[in-house]
Amino acid sequence: MRRASFEEMDCSIAQALEAVGEWWTLLILRDALFGVTRFDQFTERLGIARNVLAQRLDHLVAHGILNKVAYQQHPVRYDYRLTDKGRDLWPVLIALRQWGDTWAAPNGPRVQTVHRTCGQIITAEPTCSHCGEYLHSKDLRPVPGPGAIEPTSISGANSPTIPKGRDPGGTEAQGDS
Amino acid sequence: MRRASFEEMDCSIAQALEAVGEWWTLLILRDALFGVTRFDQFTERLGIARNVLAQRLDHLVAHGILNKVAYQQHPVRYDYRLTDKGRDLWPVLIALRQWGDTWAAPNGPRVQTVHRTCGQIITAEPTCSHCGEYLHSKDLRPVPGPGAIEPTSISGANSPTIPKGRDPGGTEAQGDS
Repeated sequence: MRRASFEEMDCSIAQALEAVGEWWTLLILRDALFGVTRFDQFTERLGIARNVLAQRLDHLVAHGILNKVAYQQHPVRYDYRLTDKGRDLWPVLIALRQWGDTWAAPNGPRVQTVHRTCGQIITAEPTCSHCGEYLHSKDLRPVPGPGAIEPTSISGANSPTIPKGRDPGGTEAQGDS
Repeated sequence: MRRASFEEMDCSIAQALEAVGEWWTLLILRDALFGVTRFDQFTERLGIARNVLAQRLDHLVAHGILNKVAYQQHPVRYDYRLTDKGRDLWPVLIALRQWGDTWAAPNGPRVQTVHRTCGQIITAEPTCSHCGEYLHSKDLRPVPGPGAIEPTSISGANSPTIPKGRDPGGTEAQGDS
């Protein structure tokens, strides 16, 4: 059964997942960020079936996340290179890695990150674009943005106290409605 | 066809995806971060089939991301509340949203974030835990961490120039091998 498309959902997370929320896509992107560009490299590293990989790569090309450029003509062979849009996903990958490092790595992180600027092994810390402070989930509040639509739920009923995927209401999140 | 498990892959991203890399899981987590706790609220907001939701919620409880607490006995009804492990996924969600805002929101962001500490609408900017500078993908280099295993590829061949999902080699990422 084909899942419902996320495209109709009025939410940037849903839109993002439409592009990258597939089984293998985030691992393909991780490898692309490592510099992997060739089909056989992806299959070798990921152990992914060739037909699945081909489908996932085509999806990423269609979404403008990878560019497909022939490096050989007879037979034709392609490099799959990250676009700016694709490379801009790195915060998602690093956040996933750091969460996995904290919660699913009993032997410690398998891969660490060196920041070339200061030369240290570091973690990426989300900070406030305005005041520069480290961010904490409890200090963040969702409000409607310029792209918000009218507050109508998928089922037709309103839920005025909690911003919905389809209708961010802009009020404080509540535990119950 | 059941997909191969990510569990055997030696990579925190793969481990993270084992927990949260499912179709609906990240949207369920987004709603949980908004304060949604009840089954009927999730189904109404997401338009998700009840059996799929039940399966996803059980998966998140099994992974220690949600706690299931009865708030009513006859019939029994549950709240599904984020654990610390679950709440710690917020940087993944905010990174996805901000990427969607940049690349998939032609009318502007649908939901924005207010930082209670400074009162402004803000974005989360990944910064260096050591030097405090904003991070850029090109300034980051992967190296093996304490949990790294021996460099053996899935197919048995080595790829010494590029850290693999299963065998981070610690060398600079190269475009070709």
